[in-house]
Amino acid sequence: MRKLLRVNMGELSVKEQVLPSEKEPTGGRHLTSSIVASEVSATCHPLSAHNKLVVAPGWLAGTGAPCGGRLSVGAKSPLTGGIKESNVGGNAGIALSRLGIAGIVVEGLPQDDNLRVLHVTADGAELVVDNELKGLGNYDTTDRLRAEFGEDISCITIGPAGEMRLLGANIAVTDEEGRPTRHAGRGGLGAVMGAKGLKAIVIEKEGGQRPESVDREAFNKAARRFAELLSEHVVTGTNLPTWGTNLLAKIINDAGLYPTRNFQEGQFELTDSISGETQRETIIARGGKVGHACHQGCTIACSRLWVDENGEFVTKGPEYETIWAHGADCDIGDLDAIARMDRLDDEIGIDTIEMGATIAVAMEAGLIEFGDAEGAIRLLEEVRDGTPLGRILGSGAKVTGQAFGVRRVPVVKGQALPAYDPRAAKGIGVTYATSTMGADHTAGYAIAQNILGVGGNVDPLKPDGQVELSRALQIATTALDGTGLCLFVAFCMLDVPEALDTVLAMTNAHFGTNVDEDWYTELGKEILRQERDFNTRAGFTAADDRLPDFFEEEPLPSHGTVFDVPHDELDTVFDF
Amino acid sequence: MRKLLRVNMGELSVKEQVLPSEKEPTGGRHLTSSIVASEVSATCHPLSAHNKLVVAPGWLAGTGAPCGGRLSVGAKSPLTGGIKESNVGGNAGIALSRLGIAGIVVEGLPQDDNLRVLHVTADGAELVVDNELKGLGNYDTTDRLRAEFGEDISCITIGPAGEMRLLGANIAVTDEEGRPTRHAGRGGLGAVMGAKGLKAIVIEKEGGQRPESVDREAFNKAARRFAELLSEHVVTGTNLPTWGTNLLAKIINDAGLYPTRNFQEGQFELTDSISGETQRETIIARGGKVGHACHQGCTIACSRLWVDENGEFVTKGPEYETIWAHGADCDIGDLDAIARMDRLDDEIGIDTIEMGATIAVAMEAGLIEFGDAEGAIRLLEEVRDGTPLGRILGSGAKVTGQAFGVRRVPVVKGQALPAYDPRAAKGIGVTYATSTMGADHTAGYAIAQNILGVGGNVDPLKPDGQVELSRALQIATTALDGTGLCLFVAFCMLDVPEALDTVLAMTNAHFGTNVDEDWYTELGKEILRQERDFNTRAGFTAADDRLPDFFEEEPLPSHGTVFDVPHDELDTVFDF
Repeated sequence: MRKLLRVNMGELSVKEQVLPSEKEPTGGRHLTSSIVASEVSATCHPLSAHNKLVVAPGWLAGTGAPCGGRLSVGAKSPLTGGIKESNVGGNAGIALSRLGIAGIVVEGLPQDDNLRVLHVTADGAELVVDNELKGLGNYDTTDRLRAEFGEDISCITIGPAGEMRLLGANIAVTDEEGRPTRHAGRGGLGAVMGAKGLKAIVIEKEGGQRPESVDREAFNKAARRFAELLSEHVVTGTNLPTWGTNLLAKIINDAGLYPTRNFQEGQFELTDSISGETQRETIIARGGKVGHACHQGCTIACSRLWVDENGEFVTKGPEYETIWAHGADCDIGDLDAIARMDRLDDEIGIDTIEMGATIAVAMEAGLIEFGDAEGAIRLLEEVRDGTPLGRILGSGAKVTGQAFGVRRVPVVKGQALPAYDPRAAKGIGVTYATSTMGADHTAGYAIAQNILGVGGNVDPLKPDGQVELSRALQIATTALDGTGLCLFVAFCMLDVPEALDTVLAMTNAHFGTNVDEDWYTELGKEILRQERDFNTRAGFTAADDRLPDFFEEEPLPSHGTVFDVPHDELDTVFDF
Repeated sequence: MRKLLRVNMGELSVKEQVLPSEKEPTGGRHLTSSIVASEVSATCHPLSAHNKLVVAPGWLAGTGAPCGGRLSVGAKSPLTGGIKESNVGGNAGIALSRLGIAGIVVEGLPQDDNLRVLHVTADGAELVVDNELKGLGNYDTTDRLRAEFGEDISCITIGPAGEMRLLGANIAVTDEEGRPTRHAGRGGLGAVMGAKGLKAIVIEKEGGQRPESVDREAFNKAARRFAELLSEHVVTGTNLPTWGTNLLAKIINDAGLYPTRNFQEGQFELTDSISGETQRETIIARGGKVGHACHQGCTIACSRLWVDENGEFVTKGPEYETIWAHGADCDIGDLDAIARMDRLDDEIGIDTIEMGATIAVAMEAGLIEFGDAEGAIRLLEEVRDGTPLGRILGSGAKVTGQAFGVRRVPVVKGQALPAYDPRAAKGIGVTYATSTMGADHTAGYAIAQNILGVGGNVDPLKPDGQVELSRALQIATTALDGTGLCLFVAFCMLDVPEALDTVLAMTNAHFGTNVDEDWYTELGKEILRQERDFNTRAGFTAADDRLPDFFEEEPLPSHGTVFDVPHDELDTVFDF
């Protein structure tokens, strides 16, 4: 019997709601999106009492499923104005599941200005006032929470950006070492948590236990097999562990779609300086760590610990998207500077993709020159300090473009595009344009088939077949986001049919269910339909399912191509 | 034979396009909206080459029709993202008409950073580079233009706000005295002009002549009769000339819907200090001018010239909406401070309604205290100077609310609500919610029937009948906005059926047409349909035809009422 915690910030109450007996597994994005879609007014102000912040581990979280500890965070997004599920690693998802908690729903608004911590234990949960946390960065916050609640905790926190309710604010989750390095990054959900006056959710692990599987033996067998499959696949078994996510830098740059200087070009001259290979060599030479797992039970360990020249920890990763956003997109080829920016982002509690893209827009506006790393760091310090300029930048690329009158602003539904130029990988362009989430590479990662040759090959430069590709990937990804499995297992699942069977076998053995591939696909469709319906009620139309004009008009220099998937084809993505 | 000037900023060319022989009169909002709707991509970035700025006098402008010199300015609005027609007095509309120019369409974007002036004479028009105008306020700009082109000109200019492409930037038009006191205020159209690198349109009056009426005698007879009707009606003949637009302050305050402190309340304790009565007395005592006409041929003369304690000119008016926005909405009860803000707004070239509402939101955010007039002036100076804080504020109430995490932001379609609380005048609430323009009192001024008893009486506090009222007013207003007649003639037209007949008589005598009331009503519907269709293509839905939640949830203290016109009724406004 799993339960939801209903936390009402207006009444300052916590109530347990036992989930009805589950004939089908539910969790993660399925739970966050279905609660947001059914309980939140689609037209409400995202910072109002009507919005709800929902935190839900995937259904396999805590079971021991390999790479199965992901946590979904959902709400109406302050950044996009639509529904949002933001997916994060770290150990909080596992910790919640082991306390029997399927989700936490934070509702209402407090009557006062106090900052609160939700303290979750095996015995229950309570709201505690802690105004000494006001204004603290995520690292200081988690240090203080450990000092107060002990080492055996997982933390879900916001930094100053969330307290300031900035549109780019994210939500941090502590990792294996207790550091706030993992982030539900996109869509400004930290602002929702900040509006509710909730600085942290502290989950005491004591008393938690692995949820009992209906057929433990069958579960363990399937889990072992899944781990084998992951280790056998070249991406999840070799490439990601060895070079981390940033192995993509050279690949994407070589393929001519590495967005450079605010998407003006598709290749960056300094890619070698910031590549995954250089990153690995530097970390090893300095005594940092490669092959770092962001949560217990991760068998891929794509993350790393970046250290400075003295071997002192600076930040995790940084990951591919972060290195791109603060690097190539801003014409910055210095991994140490990028790592400092990543650490600043994590302290502030702000999305690295949105911030990098925003600084690139600020560079296009002439605030600082392209390539000015120290200038970019100063801009981040403005965000940290909440200056007026910092509030513009912390509000993301769209608002920054508005404030400085910039026309070339790479956003869809108000959210900045990630690290792949859609003019030379048109499948990901379809995902950017049509995803319920705004521009989001994780919503349907067509780079796999467009560029990497995983799960098939679809010519990245032609418009043909991209809608079908993105549609299939969006459905599959949405289903996967319910499981609690890391998206990276999808590389294996795309190539090896047995992998999905094994995921379903783990699921059925754990829950005693009998779900199959059709159910799984239908689940993905059903969640997407709910999200899409929410967005329609929020006022989204086909006009919101478009890339900015300049992608359709300015040829990408590396290929001479524009994004030319016809609009009427884009409008068929959700025909399923 | 009237003509359009097609000004292409990319090619730096000006071409004349002769209008096909007109079987029906066209002009003003009809011309701007039909050109924008048919020629501008609804989804384009408002600052891109795809947007077009259209300037068009009403069809009676220059004919000698009383109060008939209004000019329409249209484009896709940077502020709302929808279509925009912003209506302005001053003499430019008449000057254009007398040169046979039905409209100017400014297209494309320049390839360079030069600032240009469009110099329009009886012999043609040309683009002139004048970078010495860069950064100048509207007053300095028009002073320099007069020094260069002589006194006998009308000017259409932008201030620094337009050059900075701020979302609140407006477009100034010179008045009878050559001062840039009249403004196409709403929707950020100054940013469109600024993006096109066009600082000013200078219209030389020399060589212009009153357009020949087909039946001059009949025209003159109808015009005389129209002037009589206007002078006989209490609003246009007595109240507006005597007390100006700000005669509304006491009326609206007494009726309990004078939005106070960012729409927290409906009555302002200091209304007597800023009323039209006090304004009149002060102006007369100081030797200023009451009864100032904003353009040639205006028989109402509702404007005034505000002077300081030494009798020195400060600014026009200020008008009711400005005094409310910088006054009651910000808890400021000092007409001199408000006049300084109005002058600053006019220098900067920014909408007074949007700026006042924005400062009130900034006050709610705690940037300065409510009531802090000197603080409010300092905030305006930040806008003038283009500081980061100024860029936030100059981007309007919505962006300011986003940057500072404020929930109570009184905007519809991104545009700030004017000076009537919709909870206690529900007809104007329907107009705010549903107008194609965003929150705009002039789009369907139901205050007439809700409060003033002009054109009938509809209980302001009940939801009943408001949709029908707003619909009829929006249709009639839209038709009127084609004529070039000042909206204030509508007070007379609502009460006196003969007034519309007289307008149609002037039209038919001038153009040799035979249009009737049905044609006129159908014209209003047709323009609204075009605008609505543009907005739908731009991505607007029923969700955009709503007031912010707080108007439906927080009772207005003066009446205890919320805005409760049912959403499904709002969705029928355009059923015609």
